[in-house]
Amino acid sequence: MATCIVPVPADSPFSIHNLPYGVFRPSASAAPRPGIAIGDHVLDLSAIATAGLFNGPLLSSSCCFSETTLNSFMAMGRPAWKEARATVQQLLSGEVPTLQDNSDLKKRALIPMNEVKMEVPAAIGDYTDFFCSEHHTKNCSKIFRGEFALPPNWLHLPVAYHGRASSVVVSGTDITRPMGQSFPPTPDGKTPPYFGPSRRLDYELEMAFFVGPGCELGDRVTIENAYDHIFGLVLMNDWSARDIQFWEAQPLGPFLGKSFGTSISPWIVTLEALEPFKCDAPKQDPPCLPYLTEPFRFTFDIPLEVAIKPVGDEKKSVTCRTNFKYLYWTMAQQLTHHTINGCNLRTGDLLASGTISGPDRDSLACLLEQTSNGQEEFTLEHGGVRKYLEDGDEVIFSGCCKGDGFTVGFGTCSGFVERFARLLLV
Amino acid sequence: MATCIVPVPADSPFSIHNLPYGVFRPSASAAPRPGIAIGDHVLDLSAIATAGLFNGPLLSSSCCFSETTLNSFMAMGRPAWKEARATVQQLLSGEVPTLQDNSDLKKRALIPMNEVKMEVPAAIGDYTDFFCSEHHTKNCSKIFRGEFALPPNWLHLPVAYHGRASSVVVSGTDITRPMGQSFPPTPDGKTPPYFGPSRRLDYELEMAFFVGPGCELGDRVTIENAYDHIFGLVLMNDWSARDIQFWEAQPLGPFLGKSFGTSISPWIVTLEALEPFKCDAPKQDPPCLPYLTEPFRFTFDIPLEVAIKPVGDEKKSVTCRTNFKYLYWTMAQQLTHHTINGCNLRTGDLLASGTISGPDRDSLACLLEQTSNGQEEFTLEHGGVRKYLEDGDEVIFSGCCKGDGFTVGFGTCSGFVERFARLLLV
Repeated sequence: MATCIVPVPADSPFSIHNLPYGVFRPSASAAPRPGIAIGDHVLDLSAIATAGLFNGPLLSSSCCFSETTLNSFMAMGRPAWKEARATVQQLLSGEVPTLQDNSDLKKRALIPMNEVKMEVPAAIGDYTDFFCSEHHTKNCSKIFRGEFALPPNWLHLPVAYHGRASSVVVSGTDITRPMGQSFPPTPDGKTPPYFGPSRRLDYELEMAFFVGPGCELGDRVTIENAYDHIFGLVLMNDWSARDIQFWEAQPLGPFLGKSFGTSISPWIVTLEALEPFKCDAPKQDPPCLPYLTEPFRFTFDIPLEVAIKPVGDEKKSVTCRTNFKYLYWTMAQQLTHHTINGCNLRTGDLLASGTISGPDRDSLACLLEQTSNGQEEFTLEHGGVRKYLEDGDEVIFSGCCKGDGFTVGFGTCSGFVERFARLLLV
Repeated sequence: MATCIVPVPADSPFSIHNLPYGVFRPSASAAPRPGIAIGDHVLDLSAIATAGLFNGPLLSSSCCFSETTLNSFMAMGRPAWKEARATVQQLLSGEVPTLQDNSDLKKRALIPMNEVKMEVPAAIGDYTDFFCSEHHTKNCSKIFRGEFALPPNWLHLPVAYHGRASSVVVSGTDITRPMGQSFPPTPDGKTPPYFGPSRRLDYELEMAFFVGPGCELGDRVTIENAYDHIFGLVLMNDWSARDIQFWEAQPLGPFLGKSFGTSISPWIVTLEALEPFKCDAPKQDPPCLPYLTEPFRFTFDIPLEVAIKPVGDEKKSVTCRTNFKYLYWTMAQQLTHHTINGCNLRTGDLLASGTISGPDRDSLACLLEQTSNGQEEFTLEHGGVRKYLEDGDEVIFSGCCKGDGFTVGFGTCSGFVERFARLLLV
């Protein structure tokens, strides 16, 4: 399986061991369709399906790869996901010659990645954002309340809030600096709030997973079965306007400080591809309630990185190096907790981790933490300083697992901060 | 227009002045389709459209009434909504004889309401819940912090949070008492939280509106144009598990304490039907920021009622009489504020008011307020007391505007509290 009929550069995140799913348009006017990233190419799954090469028992009669989102495929569950992976690995390795020997099909089905336009890969019904990093939670407490503390509930349940699904966008989409109300300059309550473009625009490095098969209202997913409902992961930038957020969030939580845009990387890396990178999850003390207790507790070792590339600069400056494995609550615990009250999940729902800060200064995963809410300056390695993001900054997240001689990466999740320039149009 | 070819009982909420939209199935196995309530009947709009009776310029070539939700029709905007209303009023009043004189079509298109099954009328992309009642906000503050106070932001913006869209259900759907974690009996943080069925299940009387035409990410809807984006209103029960809610909600707001079910009434009453019930909205002091300042500020006079019908009882006990007009923030302000940061709205999005408590003891719109969070008992007029809801309680909301000789009502939004009995199935 180490060989591949498509050349894969050694530093490519998209080796034959990865095979992440996305939705792309071969050209701007073409219909969106499912694809798999391989090296510098995209394998058009609709072309492979039309050619009859998905000939396993579950996929041979399915139309899932002729659709404009991955939802139908995601809804089919792990047996279908394994069948698809096995088929594509056979085709790309040349183990079966049907793609390798068909030059017409190869030309149609393998499209240079720099020619395609990526889309949000699924119709997202609901998006939930968790708050699973102990370091992030304690750092926020220190900044706002003066002490490294956790809320009383934090060690007992994965805290979360409902996010805005409509404004989830794919990597590469410009992010417009939001307008809004912010905290009055004097805290006596008599100075009215100011209004204008956010002055404290931030990134938050997160990862998120897509729900595969859902569950009905009134049912619950057990911790033992939780991973059967998880299709795969993406990188996420939960852009945050801190000034808007802090003024609006009492008492009901984040709203407009977040809902102006949430970026995700286009390629969904499956749990099958991440299997070699399983590792221990942090020990939980106190022990959690039985419904959250995992029979085999694990997480994934996924090194993550943030960089800022100011407009006009040639080099990007890395601002954070952290790891998915630092999260206190696992994906299984998040999903199980989400359904404990009978809340239904639908295929395509997106559950995000919250900001993934680690234990070190280098691993702080948002500018709020890195600058103590703008009280200090953060120095970029290639020049310049930041308290918060400036117009023209491109923020680039990446994540890559290095195995013994192979790579399973997420590619990048990027967004360019655009000045608020549009008029009131609607 | 006072006459109608369908008999309309004097006390029916669905007079020819109303004509609310819903989605129904004529039988359990039939496909959902749009309809209008008229007296004790449902007018099947797919049948009217198929017969070619929507012959105005906007609707004659549209397939919107052949779909299984109202989204396409809602997206067309007010000119199409006015055209549809005029056509249906002409047909039902007998002004044009095309329906009146066609007994076959009448039989097919007018279905007794007690034979149909109602559905959620639109595909809801995102659901947002506001917090617009000054009385409710102050009462909650009194209960939890000992004083009738508003958060510092409250008079400057309509506070809101993202709700869960997947668990919005139509009136008549049973509500399963949720399981969850709750506050430890001792506040020293050393007693672990308890787990089980919620002990503090509550209703919240709200109203919600559906978004018609949406807006793109990065755009904003001005206050002057806000009503062009509002299709119509429904009653809403934002069921709340207070014990789960209070334990989980710090610091990110409501989550599982709400997401186990949110009921809406099936019939969407349009702004055209509510036009005769326009009234002054509460004066705002301090004045709000210019983007929220309405050139012609108004709201609607909609009397609302809550009743509880315990299982086995013949009579329902009214527990609350309040009015939509008490809300401090109008629908236009809610919608405009929602987009001020560039957040996109999609057709079918649902924006709810928050609990509509009024100034009097009779007008408290949830049990939390009526019993001071279970510290007092609320006496039902037909016998029994409640601190919170019991299994077998049916909660019934109604809303009805009485004009000079005519009625524009919402019907009811009801739900039956079902004991948590299901096993772990998924």
